[in-house]
Amino acid sequence: MNENQEQTFQERLSASVERANSLLCVGLDPDLSKMPSHLRDRDSKAAIVAFNEQIIAATHDLVSAYKPNLGFYMAYGVPGIEALIETRNLIPAGIPVILDCKVGDIGSTAAAYARGFFDEWQFDAVTANPYLGEDSLVPFLSAAGKGVIVICKTSNPGSGDFQNLPLTEPAAEPLYLNVAAKAAAWQERYPATVGLVVGATYPEQLAAVRQRCPDLPVLLPGVGAQAGDLDASLAAGLDRQGAGLIVSASRGVIYAGAGRDFAARSRAVAQALRDSINSRRPVTGQAVRVS
Amino acid sequence: MNENQEQTFQERLSASVERANSLLCVGLDPDLSKMPSHLRDRDSKAAIVAFNEQIIAATHDLVSAYKPNLGFYMAYGVPGIEALIETRNLIPAGIPVILDCKVGDIGSTAAAYARGFFDEWQFDAVTANPYLGEDSLVPFLSAAGKGVIVICKTSNPGSGDFQNLPLTEPAAEPLYLNVAAKAAAWQERYPATVGLVVGATYPEQLAAVRQRCPDLPVLLPGVGAQAGDLDASLAAGLDRQGAGLIVSASRGVIYAGAGRDFAARSRAVAQALRDSINSRRPVTGQAVRVS
Repeated sequence: MNENQEQTFQERLSASVERANSLLCVGLDPDLSKMPSHLRDRDSKAAIVAFNEQIIAATHDLVSAYKPNLGFYMAYGVPGIEALIETRNLIPAGIPVILDCKVGDIGSTAAAYARGFFDEWQFDAVTANPYLGEDSLVPFLSAAGKGVIVICKTSNPGSGDFQNLPLTEPAAEPLYLNVAAKAAAWQERYPATVGLVVGATYPEQLAAVRQRCPDLPVLLPGVGAQAGDLDASLAAGLDRQGAGLIVSASRGVIYAGAGRDFAARSRAVAQALRDSINSRRPVTGQAVRVS
Repeated sequence: MNENQEQTFQERLSASVERANSLLCVGLDPDLSKMPSHLRDRDSKAAIVAFNEQIIAATHDLVSAYKPNLGFYMAYGVPGIEALIETRNLIPAGIPVILDCKVGDIGSTAAAYARGFFDEWQFDAVTANPYLGEDSLVPFLSAAGKGVIVICKTSNPGSGDFQNLPLTEPAAEPLYLNVAAKAAAWQERYPATVGLVVGATYPEQLAAVRQRCPDLPVLLPGVGAQAGDLDASLAAGLDRQGAGLIVSASRGVIYAGAGRDFAARSRAVAQALRDSINSRRPVTGQAVRVS
């Protein structure tokens, strides 16, 4: 890990984007009820690891990152957590692994989470919830070589309940743009560390975030099962270099098939998605930078 | 568990408050570096379980609830998670156990977390982050007999970064009061389920929350190591029945001593804190209700 830790998170992400010529990130979100029946005979840990291993083997040359969501592992208790750690170690060096944990807690607790997620488990980045403020994120922001992807405008139907609330200053600006502005300030203090989560279900809001934060990588979930608008999101979210997006698809890719050929079917969907994204990038196939 | 599941979370919490004549909640936040040296010879799981077991044995008649914070267990990896599950099972029936995890994710992921925290691990309540909106909380709100304690105004120095931002409607109301108002509406739809987190470091804001939500239980962290103002917080936060607060202390209680008598010292601090709280309640020693 020593050579990697001299690179910033965003440098490693950019290198991975170039290597795979891909903005695609595959979400590794295990759900035993959706897995092929021949894997479900095993115990939950073995089934999850076997499933993820085949998905990773079938897609690793097509993706710029992987993103396991902690909740889908916690649902299976200790065997689930063991499967998460094994899964992280199955991912080839050079592909950043983002733990989607939406972490947010006060300083001493945040420091404990950072020890677990970064030092013990060797994840390259986390997603984080901004509601508790900057000091809750500092243990992650200040970790050498790691990334912090702050949720800004999420993909779910109720994301507007709070994220869209208009603030008095500047006049009627929604809360999520205040989050974006503060994230840009954090990136100044912790260079090449910060990203934002904006759901593909909200391309107009993505355009507003991109305008406010021209240089921050944006993790874009909601492309597959949630029926986000890929075309509109790419038009709204690509940066000036035709990159700057981490396009995340989970269920639509990993559960593309449910038979013995499930991994090949996942590969086919991932390849089509990567190519579809690239066809909409202005500089497809050339060296690009994420930030 | 069957008989418990016919009770609401708030009924069980009220019964526990009455039994112990206490509003005190002890936070079980393991930190091996602060534990007595005679426990640290063991592996991390055994050390954490032995420590928690003695703290629970020494304090269970003095507390209305326990609150382990997930981050302090995740910091120790799989052995930490195993210790968390064992700790939960060491707590006597009738004492609600609140998992402080500040969970917040979109619907399908939230459902996975709810399965893990409630069904697999049998916690009675979780703390939750509201930033993703109501639909992110529904899998928890709709779980029979469980509680959801929504973070509102947190105890940390940076909690104002977003929580204090003034909204346009109603004029200049801070975001945290909008959270409080929505939580009160969720309590209408999911009766006896919802609470709020307000740090003891912000008694004025607690008074505003109590005015807005006269009937919601408020989890009050920050009394011990964070030097929150207990007197002012009790004056601001007690409800009309002289209850309605879950006064949470962690480091100040569990690390009161570092020798072989650490549990006895924890008990002494817990007892003094319970009695100090009760001396400021208008109906100390009589039957009280939390909500």
